[in-house]
Amino acid sequence: MIFLGKRVLVALGGNAILQSGQKGTFQEQLENVKITAQQIVRMLQAGHEIVVTHGNGPQVGAILIQNELGSASVPAMPMDVCGSESQGFIGYMFCQSLHNEMVEAGLSGHEPVCIVTQVEVDSDDPAFVRPTKPVGPFYSEEQAKARQAATGESWIEDSGRGWRRVVPSPDPKRIVEAEAVVRLVEAGSVVIASGGGGIPVVRLDDGRLKGVEAVIDKDLAGERLAKEVGADVFMVLTDVPQVALNFRSPQEKRLGRVTADELEAYQAEGHFKAGSMGPKVTAALRFVRNGGERSVIACLDEALEALEGKAGTQVVGS
Amino acid sequence: MIFLGKRVLVALGGNAILQSGQKGTFQEQLENVKITAQQIVRMLQAGHEIVVTHGNGPQVGAILIQNELGSASVPAMPMDVCGSESQGFIGYMFCQSLHNEMVEAGLSGHEPVCIVTQVEVDSDDPAFVRPTKPVGPFYSEEQAKARQAATGESWIEDSGRGWRRVVPSPDPKRIVEAEAVVRLVEAGSVVIASGGGGIPVVRLDDGRLKGVEAVIDKDLAGERLAKEVGADVFMVLTDVPQVALNFRSPQEKRLGRVTADELEAYQAEGHFKAGSMGPKVTAALRFVRNGGERSVIACLDEALEALEGKAGTQVVGS
Repeated sequence: MIFLGKRVLVALGGNAILQSGQKGTFQEQLENVKITAQQIVRMLQAGHEIVVTHGNGPQVGAILIQNELGSASVPAMPMDVCGSESQGFIGYMFCQSLHNEMVEAGLSGHEPVCIVTQVEVDSDDPAFVRPTKPVGPFYSEEQAKARQAATGESWIEDSGRGWRRVVPSPDPKRIVEAEAVVRLVEAGSVVIASGGGGIPVVRLDDGRLKGVEAVIDKDLAGERLAKEVGADVFMVLTDVPQVALNFRSPQEKRLGRVTADELEAYQAEGHFKAGSMGPKVTAALRFVRNGGERSVIACLDEALEALEGKAGTQVVGS
Repeated sequence: MIFLGKRVLVALGGNAILQSGQKGTFQEQLENVKITAQQIVRMLQAGHEIVVTHGNGPQVGAILIQNELGSASVPAMPMDVCGSESQGFIGYMFCQSLHNEMVEAGLSGHEPVCIVTQVEVDSDDPAFVRPTKPVGPFYSEEQAKARQAATGESWIEDSGRGWRRVVPSPDPKRIVEAEAVVRLVEAGSVVIASGGGGIPVVRLDDGRLKGVEAVIDKDLAGERLAKEVGADVFMVLTDVPQVALNFRSPQEKRLGRVTADELEAYQAEGHFKAGSMGPKVTAALRFVRNGGERSVIACLDEALEALEGKAGTQVVGS
């Protein structure tokens, strides 16, 4: 029997880079990335091709704070630039950690590469008239309202913890640099791309690109990337072992193998929260609906087992 | 006669991104990058393959200030991380601007890609015991000495303008991601790589990589990249039309075509200043000495003419 490796798009959750409760030092983040890299190397050793995408919430949050506090001395950069900086930072950590874990494992021929990635959204996406995604630090009501008046930004009161800026979270349509990702993964590289959901850009009527102040969901962008690079499996790695119905209730029921129809029905019943499992389930459904072989939602430390169908939630077409 | 396009490594000086006297807003930088992108598109239209590298002095300087001023709220990142962030930022601007100028020119098939790039230096490089490269903001003597005592960093008094941190500027040895650059340029892409001289890393005895607090000269790293990607021409674009002897004196004499032997003799006579033309000349000499066809040092707005041998200083083997 000939073993056929799969091409796998791995979308990493925030815990792959920073654990909740940590301060966000470089050493903490590098240590977490190292553990994540070990899981990716296990999949490479098993013969799979890997494209990695990742979140950037805490990292771009820190960059936004630095931009704000530094603004008396140097001009603050717009959100798309802050996102591009977080791609450089996190991509660097992954390239170095993956290289080192491959050395450790005696594995060669998969030199990791991070590509700075723009992701196209529609300029008439309804998200642009209804910003919902909170970003950056908390402010007092007074500060927030002053800034809102000065800049036209949207600010909201966030669950009793203070005021926060909200930006649009439009739907990803196309990965601008997808072709380069394909070329590199075909050459054997582990490619890190579309970090933080990608740098959001709109395509103007004449074909030119323009950055926008927005945040794209990293799992939805990961699904687009998975399709555009021809991935067999779209894999969302997070901090729970499986998707669950009635999550954290006495009636909690974990899902193993599930069809897209079944999962969609559960989603319609309201089982998956907008801020956490919701977009992961939506992205997993889209991949299968768009012709993908299989989506997997699983725990980071069971990545290879989940890829082999022995762990996690497996979403299939039928 | 069949026209043979050249593979060209273009090393862009600071003025390609930020003009002296500007504040450093995103709009200023994007506008400068647009003008630079137009010059690169002219070379692409003429049939050449282009790999771009660039400086990051003002940008990483701003990021260091933001890290410092933000450090009461979020942990400051080490220099290698700040460098990786600047690669993401500047790479994003170039990818978008190059795309847009190609659209404008009706040129397709060269989709730009930026690769986050680590550059290997020797851990026993003498630069590590004698840091010389000033980075980041100016401080008072009192602040500088307090920080020196707290961190072990090196600080110096910088030409009467205050105290500044100095970091090692080791010699670049190897571009970690060179293979990926080759693959993409062979597929037609304009590749942006090794920004700011690359993220400096050392290779440990077991083969693992580790970031170091240092700054690599971008022209010297550009020469390494040029060799590793098999460039025919190594091109340093700056804000003067040619290399000159007795620069800015009544005896100033500009150099057109010059052999490596001649240029090396001029350099030994002290014609090229360490902080400006010195490393450009060193890099140009190295490329030719290492078997490269030709190095060019020219003005950004005469890039194509210089590539065609009609402008700039042309450095040849003999």
